[in-house]
Order: sequence, then structure tokens, then C-alpha cells
Amino acid sequence: MSNEQQSIKLSLLLTGNELMSGDIVDSNSAMLAEALSPFGCTIYYKATVGDDLALLEQEIARIAGFSDVLVVNGGLGPTVDDLTAQALANVMRVDLLEHPQAMADLEQWCKSKNIAFNAANKKQAILPDGVGLVPNATGSAVGFSAEINGCTVYCTPGVPSELKTMFSEEILPRLPLDSNAKVKRQRYRVFGMGESGIQERVFKSGLKLPKELELGFRASLPMLELKLQANHEQDYALLEHFSEQVEQLFGAHIVTDDNRSIAHVVKDLLLAQSKRVTFAESCTGGLISSMLTELDGASGVFDAGFVTYSNEMKQKMLGVEEATLIAHGAVSQAVVEQMLSGALDRSGADLGVAVSGIAGPQGGTTDKPVGTVWVAWGSKSEIKAHCFYFPVDRKRFQILVAALGFDLLRRELMQVNEEAAYFKERSLKNKN
Amino acid sequence: MSNEQQSIKLSLLLTGNELMSGDIVDSNSAMLAEALSPFGCTIYYKATVGDDLALLEQEIARIAGFSDVLVVNGGLGPTVDDLTAQALANVMRVDLLEHPQAMADLEQWCKSKNIAFNAANKKQAILPDGVGLVPNATGSAVGFSAEINGCTVYCTPGVPSELKTMFSEEILPRLPLDSNAKVKRQRYRVFGMGESGIQERVFKSGLKLPKELELGFRASLPMLELKLQANHEQDYALLEHFSEQVEQLFGAHIVTDDNRSIAHVVKDLLLAQSKRVTFAESCTGGLISSMLTELDGASGVFDAGFVTYSNEMKQKMLGVEEATLIAHGAVSQAVVEQMLSGALDRSGADLGVAVSGIAGPQGGTTDKPVGTVWVAWGSKSEIKAHCFYFPVDRKRFQILVAALGFDLLRRELMQVNEEAAYFKERSLKNKN
Repeated sequence: MSNEQQSIKLSLLLTGNELMSGDIVDSNSAMLAEALSPFGCTIYYKATVGDDLALLEQEIARIAGFSDVLVVNGGLGPTVDDLTAQALANVMRVDLLEHPQAMADLEQWCKSKNIAFNAANKKQAILPDGVGLVPNATGSAVGFSAEINGCTVYCTPGVPSELKTMFSEEILPRLPLDSNAKVKRQRYRVFGMGESGIQERVFKSGLKLPKELELGFRASLPMLELKLQANHEQDYALLEHFSEQVEQLFGAHIVTDDNRSIAHVVKDLLLAQSKRVTFAESCTGGLISSMLTELDGASGVFDAGFVTYSNEMKQKMLGVEEATLIAHGAVSQAVVEQMLSGALDRSGADLGVAVSGIAGPQGGTTDKPVGTVWVAWGSKSEIKAHCFYFPVDRKRFQILVAALGFDLLRRELMQVNEEAAYFKERSLKNKN
Repeated sequence: MSNEQQSIKLSLLLTGNELMSGDIVDSNSAMLAEALSPFGCTIYYKATVGDDLALLEQEIARIAGFSDVLVVNGGLGPTVDDLTAQALANVMRVDLLEHPQAMADLEQWCKSKNIAFNAANKKQAILPDGVGLVPNATGSAVGFSAEINGCTVYCTPGVPSELKTMFSEEILPRLPLDSNAKVKRQRYRVFGMGESGIQERVFKSGLKLPKELELGFRASLPMLELKLQANHEQDYALLEHFSEQVEQLFGAHIVTDDNRSIAHVVKDLLLAQSKRVTFAESCTGGLISSMLTELDGASGVFDAGFVTYSNEMKQKMLGVEEATLIAHGAVSQAVVEQMLSGALDRSGADLGVAVSGIAGPQGGTTDKPVGTVWVAWGSKSEIKAHCFYFPVDRKRFQILVAALGFDLLRRELMQVNEEAAYFKERSLKNKN
């Protein structure tokens, strides 16, 4: 008797001219694949077509012919180029009819959102005769399903947030997936090391991954996701053993083993320790504050942020001394320390981060090239500062510096003694 | 004699397990589509399969059957799961042979990069008998092409940077593209109207789009992109005529006809008028400031932003009166007006925006449900305020409110008299 179960053949059919013209990058496929992966199910086949009724119709029929499940994505909106319902009706050889339940749901949705219930919106409730509804908790597009020659076809919205909720809450539970999934994964989010740096560290440690386990990487800017995977139940013990070894090898470079952002991890640490935080930002211009405040419950740990872009405002808002600015320049140890000190005083926070750097593309000098940033972090009783160097484009620079601020706080809150690898790898010789 | 030229049918076949497991998002398709679009060519059909020889073989034969050109992407690497050469050989019914030129190039490449020229690498030069080489300027994967039943098949590397160079430098010049591209597009980015609202306005106006023009929409949160397209040169005058009509119909709702963000448009207006701006943010928590400062040259228009999340910091940083907070609550007209006034005083900016709202999911009341936001905007001489209502999730709420702040400034800077549609559609009865 085999331990393995044949996985279902699940295929995808994406539709939309915007997918064929290069106007958007398809992220929905990866999202669905990720939702399926805990069940050891990968996508079997995927096709993408424009807003072309004949082609859409042909592909629904063809792919349904060799798949157990077909997820059609896109083409459910209110406009004339949304053709999925018509294509499915043609394949099923049924009429398009007003679906009373869908129409009632849609009217209710429009009402709740204060949106006009007009002809364009109503089109979304005109569906192939006989389909079942698939509720959409987050949008107006009506999802529906039908059986075609033994294949279950789900028609889903192209908007990623709507698809995500509909797929995980409505479709996934209906799929004949193996609930004793055989694939098991351990994921880690690492900050401050690249793929080659991680591989180098694994190699140098002498850690030999057995062939039963797979090691994978995925960029999840500003972090890197590291994945260890066992494909068979008999390898779970191996997975556990090597996960421990990986945890030891990377130590505090591992930010989390779940899906939280680095700001979220810091928010949780602050909450647990009943501490409050503040930020004084020059080159990140509000990004650090916004990464924290995008999280539900940020008010539990945060009162104020200071975006001091000009030198004058560093003085007025944070009490940085003019003499210090003149002597050392805005991108200097003395200035970030005074910025942090001022922010801690004014906000009454326990901890904080201050950053001042050169995001570019203009503003670099020989001593302080574009990519240079001074960061101060800590509390009134101990303010630390360091100069880092991220010679990347402006946007990436801001994201990395913001994440670095959170990582320094995280290490402080966790009382990590070991120095992060980026102190060595990302330092610019201190020239203030 | 027809003016029309049939565009070539160019299809894509992507291969790789990583595309089916969700480990990577496919950005190659959009990159190819973008390279093709100046020639009026969109991708006709796209399929994606895992590392499955039989499926790959079947799809090459099938898609070549209805395409003029088939670009196969991925599966050219040195490992055993790189199957493209074998699949193509099977379809062509020829053997795999060592290709002398490819082998020589590869040896040279390995030498120049100080990489071992081992069996794994050599595998990349073992190609179907009779194919032509397609040089790879940036990597070791060997590109090649063959004719199958009148379809030209190009096999290309999956690494985005290698594909990009190979496609633009080697493949594009060989394609039978119309160098006098016939497609012409006019794009508009609109803020404050949804897809159905736009269609409704078009419908009510009596504007009848001729069948020669295509109207398309694309979400580009926080804006909506509206596209008018003529597919033939003889329709360019029509396109121009209807573009003007669309511009009249939507007026100042059109933020831009290029790729700029709404913050970028405001930055350019501020620069042109030599004005400086400031932001006082509660519910957006720094997002407004960061949307401006992510732009190169923000320092030309911006000195300071105030992230006042708590009531106490609204008092300390901006001078909001305690009595006002007690009488009206933080989400009120009086408070946002005082926030803005304080921010203008302290920063010395000419213009500003202040926001205070309930991003949720907690914190709503009957009078002020989640999604309520008070916005103040303007200058010291005239501060305006209005209460809006965006009952959407926290992240979307913050993005919409931030963009709304920029849009109100934009209308102020452009001295638009006509009231934006969102004043009617997104207002909550004023209860402060």
C-alpha cells in the first residue's frame, strides 16, 4: 500500500487583455499556487488569453477536458470586455439569465458601500443558467461554478484581494484535496543577508542537506524567505532536525517563521514589553512611520513620528543644533543622535530610530556617496549609531533603510548580543 | 487595397516547476509584451507548464499549430529538469546532438567567468539537430530556434535579465513586425471615480464610441487608468476627436495622461509654482509624506511632515487645543483645521493637508463608522475641510485617503472650480 496519493489536476485559465499587453504582471497564479501548496498540490496547467470570446470558450472546453478543477480568473467585471459568463454559457450551451440571489447580494453590496446600483453593475449578476454562486466577501464581482464533463469550473474575480479571499474561504474548502498533505515546509524570513550570503554560510558551516530535503529562496523585499521542504511523511523528522540546524546557523538573522512583516514583528515585541516607539526620519520621509501605522493596533505602541526633511526642520522639530549641522552635515552621527534624542523627548516614547542619508540620485559626495545613511537607535539611556551603505536605487534604498531601522529595534528588544552580518557587510567607513 | 496589416500571432510557452508552485511570479511575460507593444503586437496566447516532458512536447506542437511565432521560455539550464531541448527534438523528430559552435561559445563564456566547464554546463550545448543559435550576451544558457510547420519557435532562457537582452537584441529584429506600428493609444489616469462610475458618465453623456476605437480600464490604485485605442492609422483622427471628448467629459478628474503618480503630479505643480507643502497625518500615519518623498527631488517642495497619531501629540506637535479634542473628538472638522494650521505655522509651507479618520478595523462608532475621515487642505489664508467616507479595508483606506489629500491639493493648485464627483459620492453626513 502506497503512502502517496495522486494529487488533483487543477488548472488555471487567466483572461484579460491587460495580461497580454504587458500592462500588468500576473501575481494571482503565484497566490493560488501558494494557497494550494500546503496540500501538496501544484498547478497542473495554465493558459492565458485576452478578452477574446471564441478563444476563451475554446480554452474553457479544452482545459476542462483534461483537468479535475479549472479556475477561470478575470473577466467578471461590469464592462463589455468582461466575457467570462458569456464564454461559460456558450460552453455549457445554456442562456445567460439574471440570477436572483446574485442580484439581491449585489444590490445589498452596492447599498452598503454607498455605490450606485446601475446597469453596468447589474451585468455582474447575469450568469449562465444553472451555475452555483461562489460568494465574494470583499467585492462586487460575482463568483460562480459549474460542472463541465466532470471538471468543476470556478469563475473568479481578477482583483487580487477579491480572489484571495474567495479562493481561501470559498473554493479551497470545496476542493477534493488531500487533507493529510505529504509536503511539509519550514519557512524563515531573514533580514540583512542575500541568497549568496546565505548559501556561503551554509557551505562554510559544513551543513550538508540530505537529498530528501529541498532548500529554496524567495525574495520578499526587504527580507529574503528561506524554505526547507520535505516531500514525504517519512522525512518529517529530517526536516525538523535540519530546521533546528538552520535556526542555529542564522540565529537572530531570522526575523520570523511566519508571514509577518518586519514592522509587525517589532510591533508585537513592543506590545509584549509595553513599550512605545517613535521615529525621526529624513531620507525615508515617513516610510518608517507608515510601515508601522499600516498595521492594525499601531496606536498601542506609537504616538508620533517626525518627518524632518530639511535642516531647518531638524532644528525646529527635534532640537538638532545648528552648529552640529554646520560642523558635520545632516548625514552624520552627531545629527542622527540629536534627532533621536529630540524625538524621544518630544514623544515620550521608550525607544526610537532616527535616519539621515542620501537616497539619491542626486546629493552624493566623495566622502558620502549616494547610498550612505547614518542610523541612530535605542532609548534615552543608551543611543547607538552606525553608518551603513546601500548603493541601490532610491526606492530600494528607502525600503532597506526603513527595514534596517526596524531590525535594529528588534535586536534591541530581543537583547541580541551577536552583531548582525550587515554591520560588516553594509558599513561605510565612518566619515563624519 | 487595404490599409490593414494583420499582426503576427505570437504565443508564449513558459516552463518550470517554480512557476506552478508559486515560488516565483512570472514577470517575463509582461516584459516581452512591453517590448512588443510599440509594434502594435500583443501576445496572442500563453500557456505555462511544469517540468513535464510529455506536456511540454504536446504544448510546443499544439501552440506552434496556430501561431506564427512561439517563444518557449525556461528549461534551458544545466540541470536534469531543464527539458526544453529534449521536448523540441521530440516534436521535430530529430536527435539531440552536441552543437559545435554552441559548445565553443559556452567554453569561452565559462573561461571568461572563471566557471568550471563541466558536464552540467556542457549539457546546455546539446541541442536538437538542425536548430539555429540565438546568441545569449549575458548568460550561459544557449538560445536556439527552429521552424515547425511554418511557425518559428524560439527557445529562450528563464532568467529575466538574459531573456531581456536576448529578446530585444536577437529575436525582436528577426520578427516580421510591422515597423509602421498601427496601434495608437491615449491613456488617462483618473482619481475619484470607479470603473462603473466612468461608464455611467459616458453613457449618460450620450457619447457614443465608434467601433473603430477601444475603451479599456485598468486599476492603478489609487487611480483608475482609462485607455482609448485606435488599431488602424485611418482611425487616428477619430482617436484624437474622442480623446478630446473624453477630456471634456471627465475634466479635472483626469490627473494625468502619463505614468506619473498623483503625488508626482502634485510635486510638479508645486515646483512650477515655487510652493512648498506640509502634511499633518493621523490615520495615514506617514503615508502621505512618504508618497512625496519617494520621488526624486522632493526636497524642492517639502521640508517637514507631522505624524500625530495620539491626541496628546496633536496638541504638543501641532497646537491642537485640548478643549477642541474633548468637545469634538479627534475625527472632526475643528481638529483637522487646527492640525493643518499648526503644521503650516511650524513648517512655513504655503500649502498643506491634514487628515484624521478611522482606518479600522476597530474604533468605529455609530456616528463615525470605520472609514470616516475628516480632511483639511489649503493655505493659511483659506483652510477648507470636508468629511469623507471610505468603507474599505485598512490598507486601501489609507491609500485612498492619502491620494485624496494629493488630489485636493492638485485641484487647489490648478484652481479647479468644478467640484469633484467624490464630494457627492464619498461624503458622510457631517457630524462633528
